[in-house]
Amino acid sequence: MIEAEFSKTALQSALRAFRAAIGEDKVYTDDIDQVAYSDHFSPDPEKHQPGGALTPETEEEVQAIVRIANEHKIPLWPISRGKNFGYGGAAPVMKGSLVLDLSRMKKIEVDEENGTVLVEPGVSFFDLYDYLQERKIPLWLSVPGNSWGSVAGNALDRGVGYTPYGDHASRICGLEVVLPDGDLMRTGMGAMEGSPNWQLYRYGFGPAWDSLFCQSNFGVVTKLGLWLMPEPESVLGYDISCSNPDDLGWLIDTLVPLRREGILQQSPSIGNWLRSVAVMTQREEWIEPGRPFDEATIKKITGAFDIGWWNVSIRVYGPLPMTKATMEVVKAAFSGKPVMRMRETRWVKGDAPEGSPATGVPISFPLANANWFGGRGGHISYSPTLPPRGDLAMRQFKRTRARYEEFGFDYHPSFAIGERHLTNVNQVLFNRDDPDMVARLDPFFRTLVADADEERYGEYRTHIEYMDLVADTFNFNNHALRRLNERVKDALDPNGIIAPGKSGIWPQRLRKS
Amino acid sequence: MIEAEFSKTALQSALRAFRAAIGEDKVYTDDIDQVAYSDHFSPDPEKHQPGGALTPETEEEVQAIVRIANEHKIPLWPISRGKNFGYGGAAPVMKGSLVLDLSRMKKIEVDEENGTVLVEPGVSFFDLYDYLQERKIPLWLSVPGNSWGSVAGNALDRGVGYTPYGDHASRICGLEVVLPDGDLMRTGMGAMEGSPNWQLYRYGFGPAWDSLFCQSNFGVVTKLGLWLMPEPESVLGYDISCSNPDDLGWLIDTLVPLRREGILQQSPSIGNWLRSVAVMTQREEWIEPGRPFDEATIKKITGAFDIGWWNVSIRVYGPLPMTKATMEVVKAAFSGKPVMRMRETRWVKGDAPEGSPATGVPISFPLANANWFGGRGGHISYSPTLPPRGDLAMRQFKRTRARYEEFGFDYHPSFAIGERHLTNVNQVLFNRDDPDMVARLDPFFRTLVADADEERYGEYRTHIEYMDLVADTFNFNNHALRRLNERVKDALDPNGIIAPGKSGIWPQRLRKS
Repeated sequence: MIEAEFSKTALQSALRAFRAAIGEDKVYTDDIDQVAYSDHFSPDPEKHQPGGALTPETEEEVQAIVRIANEHKIPLWPISRGKNFGYGGAAPVMKGSLVLDLSRMKKIEVDEENGTVLVEPGVSFFDLYDYLQERKIPLWLSVPGNSWGSVAGNALDRGVGYTPYGDHASRICGLEVVLPDGDLMRTGMGAMEGSPNWQLYRYGFGPAWDSLFCQSNFGVVTKLGLWLMPEPESVLGYDISCSNPDDLGWLIDTLVPLRREGILQQSPSIGNWLRSVAVMTQREEWIEPGRPFDEATIKKITGAFDIGWWNVSIRVYGPLPMTKATMEVVKAAFSGKPVMRMRETRWVKGDAPEGSPATGVPISFPLANANWFGGRGGHISYSPTLPPRGDLAMRQFKRTRARYEEFGFDYHPSFAIGERHLTNVNQVLFNRDDPDMVARLDPFFRTLVADADEERYGEYRTHIEYMDLVADTFNFNNHALRRLNERVKDALDPNGIIAPGKSGIWPQRLRKS
Repeated sequence: MIEAEFSKTALQSALRAFRAAIGEDKVYTDDIDQVAYSDHFSPDPEKHQPGGALTPETEEEVQAIVRIANEHKIPLWPISRGKNFGYGGAAPVMKGSLVLDLSRMKKIEVDEENGTVLVEPGVSFFDLYDYLQERKIPLWLSVPGNSWGSVAGNALDRGVGYTPYGDHASRICGLEVVLPDGDLMRTGMGAMEGSPNWQLYRYGFGPAWDSLFCQSNFGVVTKLGLWLMPEPESVLGYDISCSNPDDLGWLIDTLVPLRREGILQQSPSIGNWLRSVAVMTQREEWIEPGRPFDEATIKKITGAFDIGWWNVSIRVYGPLPMTKATMEVVKAAFSGKPVMRMRETRWVKGDAPEGSPATGVPISFPLANANWFGGRGGHISYSPTLPPRGDLAMRQFKRTRARYEEFGFDYHPSFAIGERHLTNVNQVLFNRDDPDMVARLDPFFRTLVADADEERYGEYRTHIEYMDLVADTFNFNNHALRRLNERVKDALDPNGIIAPGKSGIWPQRLRKS
């Protein structure tokens, strides 16, 4: 554990300066505040407990905070809304950092004609949805499982959703950033004062910076441009269930070419039975504590909820003649395959809203899986990427599932089908009130990362506790990427105040030798 | 004009070291070599004439060159194949730089199953096409107008093509880069030694670097991963011609929603009559020198070649039922519109190759427009981006056309329809043997940039001569983007040896105060 090192005196005089700059009421340093900004989904929230929080309302206040932090060398941990559950919530890598909480910044500017929005970090998916609904603006969101979270923060951490705009990072178009020295810059066409193209053309002139501020600690993003999907004329689809564990292989081999060829434009996510039911029931209703799930019990559960061992939803979007034709192609691809069930779905403009994330409606029910054990639940996610092949997915599935059993956890995976890869998100649900289970969590997670490393699969995103561990696996030419990141970090943030340790990038003064 | 400053002695000892490192036969410094690597399409090739060229064959040789260049502070201008015509060809911003010509590096690694390729910079579109054809690999290229050029270099300069993969920079997946200090790094999943996902998943872990090496001088790209389109089952389309200049407005307003909604997945490019005929005929056949084209003469020409004032090709790709349905939607969008002609095109797998860039076949005929004046022709391109609106495009068209007439050039524009923007590429064809015309070129170009600046339209790409001019227009917060670029430049390239001045980014020792 690395803890922020600064004298009580330095902190006290910094806090005085923060209060003077942004107002007493926007600085939170009581014990209860430190707890509030900790990671409640992690086994040991104290390990990454912040020293408090600063809650600016404007980019000028962010600039003032950053300048003061430089003066006193106080590490800041910027969060948008802090709902990065499974990966650290609001909490910093480095204990004692001050959380720079941007959730008060809630401006929304929609360009209805062009289908874009400029959001500040405090805007949640619910906020933006309400904004569009109130004004009857026919643009759809792509939402993640937890729509309490920030639209901007989710895109910056490369979160995903379920529509054709589901690769959120790829729909970013233009940022406003407070750099670590307090300077304010805009990327892309925003680098031109008053440009009408800031949210319209992504690259700008010269090197394009948007992706450098994703999963990064090179600056504090204060505004983010995002493309939104124009409401389609229709959404047709299939909800597909398969009854056997081994169905994963052919299911992936059937879906991957459809996705690669652009027949499917969203990324279907195949989840197992537990992913479906953990939000609807509790473990103890089905099996005694500590006993692993056997196939007979799983059968009972899937039967009771009328779901498959694996379940996946496919949706196609567009004018009805096009979606109908696409569905025929999808249907043909599944012809003769041993599906348990393929249920057709259909929404056509004018129908009542389907109310699902597939049609851009925010949700929060996936968080209900925190209740799986009945106690104070939590989860962390282990999320490697792998080549889009059924056989490799099957191997990954079997190895990971065996590890879950070895360490006494319930296997809870999904395999999302990207344009050229699979993302395998494995949630590890646990009971914070079960100290034995909590103790097994860390060795389990390290084993999973080591397993992935052996296959040379890298995580697409990871929990704050394991950022160094994962960054260590990116070892080409003696960690050339890390050395590059560190050089840029030192050039932009010589005092190392912005999010030390994020994505394994440490400023010089805190670097392990 | 900025000229490389180093003593003859420094150059001589550097050249000795280069020869020792990569071999006598890979170092070119004769007068004829300097001419060979100049920009033959520019009005004054001497202004950006390099001091010679170095032609390594491997990344180790590139590393050796970069290290020697640091030692002797010799500026290098990396080119892939140097076919960046209209924007500088092989020539450096800074006269006297040594061209780092990577055209000997020609390795190709195709992943047929996943539809990806890893190319070295020397691989041209023709090379890659031949490679795929010889092995009957069913993957299609997206090619630019000049397919002599480098696949990697084109993507890095954000070149475009005509298929759904036509935004080449957006299909980059993983780079290998020699950094300015000679260090070798790989981006994305390539940062993990032996990763099977280097060309499959784009972001990697932490900040994603690919777009930072586009239009940039932060490193020398020695390998580039690119996604290729799986051969579709069919390509249907319309070749659309319109007979009046004013048709541009409604044409854009018809196509833009189709593109934004993903009904069209490639970016149609609307070109005027001259863009079509300049490759097939010469000016003097139609009008006397110096006289501007009047509508009567244009009518004669468009009649003779059976084309419109504006012409655009639309293509849709995929399984036949899907492309047919899409064509119905496109047709309906054009219903009642005053088109001159909509000619249907149809290619279905098994048909003879269409042989056009729309089906991934490399071309070079657009270069024939260098012959428009009969003398030694050239062109430079002025390429602003603007919001995707017919009225704005019409205004841009009228203003720009008037400027062409004012300065005595023939208006030669295209408007390409991106997902959320228009790119308006204006070629300025000229006759290098007409000193009067050549003299008008520079003030003309500066006027065009000033016009765009007034609307706050930024160029997406520009000629080496005008990189500072264009970079100057990106002025948000006292050029915050430039200041950021410069800080990173100084951190990565303290001796300022890689492409000084590229995209207006200068190293400290060469920066204007």
